[in-house]
Amino acid sequence: MKWGWVFLGVLLTLGTLSWADKGLEVPEYDGKDRVHSLNAKNYKSVMKKYDVMVLYYHAHVGNNKEAKKVFELEELALELLTSPAALTYQLAAQVLDDIDDEDIGFGLVDEKNDRSVAKKLGLDEVESIYIFADDEIIEYDGELAADTLVEFLYDVIEDPVEIIDNDRELKGFHNIDEDIKLIGYFKSEKSPHFIEYDDAAEEFHPFIKFFATFDPKIAKKLRMKLNEVDFYEPFMEEPAIIPGSPYTEEELVEYIEEHDRPTLRKLEPHSMYETWEDDIDGKHIVAFAEEDDPDGYEFLEIVKEVARENTDNPDLSIIWINPDDFPLLVPYWERTFEIDLGSPQIGVVDVKDADSVWLDMDDDEDMPTASELEDWIEDVLSGKIDPDEDDDDNMTQ
Amino acid sequence: MKWGWVFLGVLLTLGTLSWADKGLEVPEYDGKDRVHSLNAKNYKSVMKKYDVMVLYYHAHVGNNKEAKKVFELEELALELLTSPAALTYQLAAQVLDDIDDEDIGFGLVDEKNDRSVAKKLGLDEVESIYIFADDEIIEYDGELAADTLVEFLYDVIEDPVEIIDNDRELKGFHNIDEDIKLIGYFKSEKSPHFIEYDDAAEEFHPFIKFFATFDPKIAKKLRMKLNEVDFYEPFMEEPAIIPGSPYTEEELVEYIEEHDRPTLRKLEPHSMYETWEDDIDGKHIVAFAEEDDPDGYEFLEIVKEVARENTDNPDLSIIWINPDDFPLLVPYWERTFEIDLGSPQIGVVDVKDADSVWLDMDDDEDMPTASELEDWIEDVLSGKIDPDEDDDDNMTQ
Repeated sequence: MKWGWVFLGVLLTLGTLSWADKGLEVPEYDGKDRVHSLNAKNYKSVMKKYDVMVLYYHAHVGNNKEAKKVFELEELALELLTSPAALTYQLAAQVLDDIDDEDIGFGLVDEKNDRSVAKKLGLDEVESIYIFADDEIIEYDGELAADTLVEFLYDVIEDPVEIIDNDRELKGFHNIDEDIKLIGYFKSEKSPHFIEYDDAAEEFHPFIKFFATFDPKIAKKLRMKLNEVDFYEPFMEEPAIIPGSPYTEEELVEYIEEHDRPTLRKLEPHSMYETWEDDIDGKHIVAFAEEDDPDGYEFLEIVKEVARENTDNPDLSIIWINPDDFPLLVPYWERTFEIDLGSPQIGVVDVKDADSVWLDMDDDEDMPTASELEDWIEDVLSGKIDPDEDDDDNMTQ
Repeated sequence: MKWGWVFLGVLLTLGTLSWADKGLEVPEYDGKDRVHSLNAKNYKSVMKKYDVMVLYYHAHVGNNKEAKKVFELEELALELLTSPAALTYQLAAQVLDDIDDEDIGFGLVDEKNDRSVAKKLGLDEVESIYIFADDEIIEYDGELAADTLVEFLYDVIEDPVEIIDNDRELKGFHNIDEDIKLIGYFKSEKSPHFIEYDDAAEEFHPFIKFFATFDPKIAKKLRMKLNEVDFYEPFMEEPAIIPGSPYTEEELVEYIEEHDRPTLRKLEPHSMYETWEDDIDGKHIVAFAEEDDPDGYEFLEIVKEVARENTDNPDLSIIWINPDDFPLLVPYWERTFEIDLGSPQIGVVDVKDADSVWLDMDDDEDMPTASELEDWIEDVLSGKIDPDEDDDDNMTQ
């Protein structure tokens, strides 16, 4: 029963400050166990019951240090103390238990006890969440927080391709600039080329956004030919036209896989670990900038300018972190990187030991110009600036 | 020791999915108690120690139903089970324990045991958080989640007035459109008129954003005269010039208090309960629209258009909710209001019983035009459409 967590009315999200009014009750965990423990015997029948199955492939609980420490406590307390992740997971299951059009199931696969199940299902990274939906397996490698996971699952159950019908929706399409997005222009939903496109979309859904239009007027505004698909990198103004239209699903998949590391990408809670693991030679160029702050906005504009000018450089990928998206990490980053996140920062971080070198920007002075920033980035890419050389001479500018 | 929460390594935020790389460790609660229990004897000396003191004025713990239920469990478990809010609060205290330039203290005031302390400090709403900083008391009436609270506290410790020095920062200023903001043009930081403005800013900080410029070129771009202050409602393109420049602090405070309920306002986690409590005749007009979705974006543009045309109507205040900001509440709203949040919605909600009436929008059809939406809003304001009359004839359109 270690992963049972049937404890009395424990509240995870407790947002309901006192109030008499109705309409804003943040759900609290009701203590009911909605999560299946999967094993070799039951996994097929459990998974059959749901349209979407979410599996948390977790480290073996018996190995957990905390579990041993508190072994003499009540079983109830033990469960809670050893597996607070469970609360997050149970709350997500509870919240999604109520939506009517899709059946979403939640399960657990223990690394040690259920090794055979993991192997059969193709789960390879322990402490990851795998989502089985429409014959696709989606790996969730983001923050294990109920709200982030639930929001991600809403995206999963949406159609992989969104249709743009009119000018306002087109404005909405242009408004999305933080994600990779594609748009295709096809004759209709029945076009075989649209079907290939839709199939390709399923492979990358929901990490990459796919749009389509069947309206010649919209296509004209996008300057697109029939059956053409355009690929937009985040923060870039002009798309790349994917060559060789019309395309098969495989051609589209191949193109996207070749181009899915943008020159500038935003760290997002739902994919934060995945992004961080995708380093270049063990390093990341990281820019901290608060978009809602005039200084941060100013610096971000400079970074975008540099990214746009260097979008063809395959060795350059800058991670933009908006500190507002990760408030709990701010003091950790300030300590680890020895920087002040009250003003914008750019640096290069070694992902193995978190050693880092930061561009010296006096926050009372002007920001670097785009060309000064470009010079600094060149020095980073050439190895002239290297977080592994710890002496202060490396602090440029 | 009920509010002591010194339990073994409990993790609240457990985001660290397995990974060898460094640089993204989401903090976990370390079990150390950093929260003071305030009472009549110690509150003065405790509060003196900190630049900023955060007080959670909580309901008396002995009255808690859960506490009674689990009374026979281990004390350790009891504490956790009765006060998960405590985890959120302890984690916030832990995260902010490490920042160096400000000392931020966290305390608890029990509604029953410490009534005299609450009275002396002016705490009147139980289950609210009060922040004492620079002789101001700020009431936090938002989501009790560690990340939301911590982000709010970062805002609290920033300067109340941000200075705009150059064109890029001005662009950043214009980019902020979801909050009430003000900008003043003064000769310098030493100008007595700036000092009055800065004092007024402290009264509303951090809920309302205050900017200033000392640069005639920036002022020219804003078409501002010396000592003028402009007031921007959220989502409006043109500001109102506050009449009667130069202003005293009192004149500014009075103007802002008269205008602090915008025609269109966004529900934000850090002030969600405060916003919801600010109803008009017990009702709210609520628009749900996902900004990152082309349909949602389209509808939001229509709502903004209507708000801009009716900004002088004091009876109109629409609350825009982006479902992406409240993923855990989505199924609750869908159930309570009997709507599908997969597409945009607008309705009127009675805050006492959550009865509601929603504009009938067929999501396969076009959205309502601005003028159709205006007609609907007029019917709501005149009482022709009323959530208290539950029969279906009220479903207009």
